[in-house]
Amino acid sequence: MHSKSTKISFATIIFIVLKQKTKMALLIVGHPELDKSIANNAIIEEVKKHDLDIEIRYLHQLYPDYKIDINAEQAALLRHETIIFQYPFYWYNAPAILKLWFDEVFTYQFAYGSKGYKLKGKNFLLSFTVGAPQQEYQALGEHHFGIPEFCKNFEQTAYYAQMNYMAPIYSFGTSTAAGYKESEIRDKAKAHAKILVSALLNLK
Amino acid sequence: MHSKSTKISFATIIFIVLKQKTKMALLIVGHPELDKSIANNAIIEEVKKHDLDIEIRYLHQLYPDYKIDINAEQAALLRHETIIFQYPFYWYNAPAILKLWFDEVFTYQFAYGSKGYKLKGKNFLLSFTVGAPQQEYQALGEHHFGIPEFCKNFEQTAYYAQMNYMAPIYSFGTSTAAGYKESEIRDKAKAHAKILVSALLNLK
Repeated sequence: MHSKSTKISFATIIFIVLKQKTKMALLIVGHPELDKSIANNAIIEEVKKHDLDIEIRYLHQLYPDYKIDINAEQAALLRHETIIFQYPFYWYNAPAILKLWFDEVFTYQFAYGSKGYKLKGKNFLLSFTVGAPQQEYQALGEHHFGIPEFCKNFEQTAYYAQMNYMAPIYSFGTSTAAGYKESEIRDKAKAHAKILVSALLNLK
Repeated sequence: MHSKSTKISFATIIFIVLKQKTKMALLIVGHPELDKSIANNAIIEEVKKHDLDIEIRYLHQLYPDYKIDINAEQAALLRHETIIFQYPFYWYNAPAILKLWFDEVFTYQFAYGSKGYKLKGKNFLLSFTVGAPQQEYQALGEHHFGIPEFCKNFEQTAYYAQMNYMAPIYSFGTSTAAGYKESEIRDKAKAHAKILVSALLNLK
């Protein structure tokens, strides 16, 4: 009896320790055609399988009219330690809805300003899918630049808000239009989700 | 009489030559708060003073609901040899409406694809205003990167559509919020417009 009671306590302690390691995260999904997406959907579904206490906000479902509820978005940001942005690479950047989210939500005296910097110290993590293969993203490739070169506007946005810009997580070859098979894309999405979950679990 | 007739013909020829040098240009304005803008309005007004045969499309006035008329925009693009994008720098990039314009208008089989590349050879010119001063846009400055580093997504978009990416035209210190006087901003806008008009007149 005494022995059993000790065991339960120990399990409870382990549970609490694990819970503390997995900080609350907010997943902002910026995808205008999520219903047609294989990769982004699969990544989100994989992430949801883990007990990570993640809040997911689907921007296009919340704001099909592009009228962002600034207060709701700012309140959501304040609830979390880590903000993940999940999206497909559209024209070497995020879809417009995500840029609108920044334009509207990262306001003076919230994201910056004398009474701002409300997001200071929070983690900022880009997580996106790139349709084309990796080898095209180099000076001599079709897309001429490496992926991090296309992320600098977001990187500096994070710095300006005094957030912690984490290394972006991205997967290449995730588009059927680029000739990839659905099964292949699903495998890549699973691998992507694994890296993302691991990054979240390793946060201090 | 003969002499006078000769003079008129000569003037006509000069006029035709100048007209041919100033190719038709499309000015796409992406500014959600143009009515409040000093710099962008002043640039546009200055440009309009010149006989440049420019068509101006104010995206936010045309599409306050963010529902872009793709056919109308593609037709407008086909009417011109030079496409200018006029906007204020928002979070190290263009306002969301302009990104939406690319996401929606630069479609497969129009901007690219086996039957696409309809914009091939057209000039692509970014023209924008930056609120903060120039010295902040460097590694040791508040914004850490030079402006061209924030333009690579647009630059590569132009390359992918086989357009001619021209050197962007931009002006620093154009925001009253950053402490600049209205008169100072107007002067900068005039200088900016002069460079823009000159670039258009020098197009082959």
